[in-house]
Amino acid sequence: VLTITRRLLLVSNSTLHGGGYLDHCQTQIQDFFGKDVKRVLFVPYALHDRDSYTKTARDKFRTLGYNVDSIHEASDPVDAVRKAEGIFIGGGNTFRLLKSLYDNKVVTEIRRRVLEDGVPYMGSSAGTNVATISISTTNDMPIVYPPSFSAIGLVPFNINPHYLDPDPNSRHMGETREQRIRQYHEEPDTPCVLGLKEGSMLRVEGHRATLLGTTKARLFSRGQTSVEYDPGSDLSFLLTDAH
Amino acid sequence: VLTITRRLLLVSNSTLHGGGYLDHCQTQIQDFFGKDVKRVLFVPYALHDRDSYTKTARDKFRTLGYNVDSIHEASDPVDAVRKAEGIFIGGGNTFRLLKSLYDNKVVTEIRRRVLEDGVPYMGSSAGTNVATISISTTNDMPIVYPPSFSAIGLVPFNINPHYLDPDPNSRHMGETREQRIRQYHEEPDTPCVLGLKEGSMLRVEGHRATLLGTTKARLFSRGQTSVEYDPGSDLSFLLTDAH
Ligand SMILES: [Ca+2]
Ligand SMILES: [Ca+2]
Repeated sequence: VLTITRRLLLVSNSTLHGGGYLDHCQTQIQDFFGKDVKRVLFVPYALHDRDSYTKTARDKFRTLGYNVDSIHEASDPVDAVRKAEGIFIGGGNTFRLLKSLYDNKVVTEIRRRVLEDGVPYMGSSAGTNVATISISTTNDMPIVYPPSFSAIGLVPFNINPHYLDPDPNSRHMGETREQRIRQYHEEPDTPCVLGLKEGSMLRVEGHRATLLGTTKARLFSRGQTSVEYDPGSDLSFLLTDAH
Repeated sequence: VLTITRRLLLVSNSTLHGGGYLDHCQTQIQDFFGKDVKRVLFVPYALHDRDSYTKTARDKFRTLGYNVDSIHEASDPVDAVRKAEGIFIGGGNTFRLLKSLYDNKVVTEIRRRVLEDGVPYMGSSAGTNVATISISTTNDMPIVYPPSFSAIGLVPFNINPHYLDPDPNSRHMGETREQRIRQYHEEPDTPCVLGLKEGSMLRVEGHRATLLGTTKARLFSRGQTSVEYDPGSDLSFLLTDAH
């Protein structure tokens, strides 16, 4: 059962073309973590060089008024989650990220902290994928084998970050993003997939979900025509069991 | 130990922009299967609609002088592999394909027939991915969870089908194909990855490998600069243990 305390900021992409790291969502980050959170627990597992990645996140969050502790610097990762005021899981490779979350046994504890204790959770790209039911709609290469594709499950649907509509001028014959998501929906009992274009993000406050940012999102549901939503749209219906 | 009888045709893509199904490689298909093979065993597991997919393959192969039996029409898939004169595994979703190969228990038997009996194996796109060490360099979405990413292992390296160089004009911030393959090579003990552009294919005859088709291929090796190869290049060095 999803509780009413759940607070999420699920961002499509860490960097928007022409901007710096997290620039395009910095006001949303400050609005989300607010003034009560002083320290954010960063999870750099999606990239190989965790020290360098932590420095990037730490430098950016410092300019926004937050101190960053990285989970990879903690002697006990589960305990670090247990004490976190806020959590931010960054992008990179989704398979590497999910495998590391399982290897470090923090999947259940992150879920518990967010759903039961109301600890605010921010994800970007791969960090957004792992917040959903499963990583089955990631764009990443399966460079390592995780023990499951099931993810943290903070929302009852899937997300495709970096979503982009088919390019009518493309001569490339690999599947379009839409075709890939349709293939997912050919499988039984597959949930909705929210395609978040670069520049968009989803904010969840309890039972309320709102599309934020400057670009649109496209919602794919099994056996139905996809629907596009503008920034500002109320997507709270995605949080109910029927979806 | 890889035997000298091995015969493979590993195609990047089933359809080239502006052409029909397998048009761009039809002369190579006839040259590969030759006049001795009369019936080709088709594996349609990568697509959801296996009947429709089999009709597409059957119609095309008939124009090339071959009859097609589909493995999904056989009462005993392992027995169908045991009796095959030639094998063709088509493209689609690589995860769905590999899971079905394991579910139907044909991975080992296909490997045995190709490496020990010299049965010619053709793969296209996902069918090329599963011919290599692992599916870790597929472009597809992980829509189902296979019991392993290890594949049939007919060659001692990996392939990235539909390979494309970075687009300098792109404003999209998702990883380029090159970045994705580099992330794979950040993991320990990862083999070479041959990026086969659309229009290219690899033909293997025993210990000899040759790049065919009209486009180039780019070879990625762990910790080294990538190298581009022209059609006609001898890539036999990829078949030795050092690679
Ligand atoms: Ca990624
Ligand atoms: Ca594919």
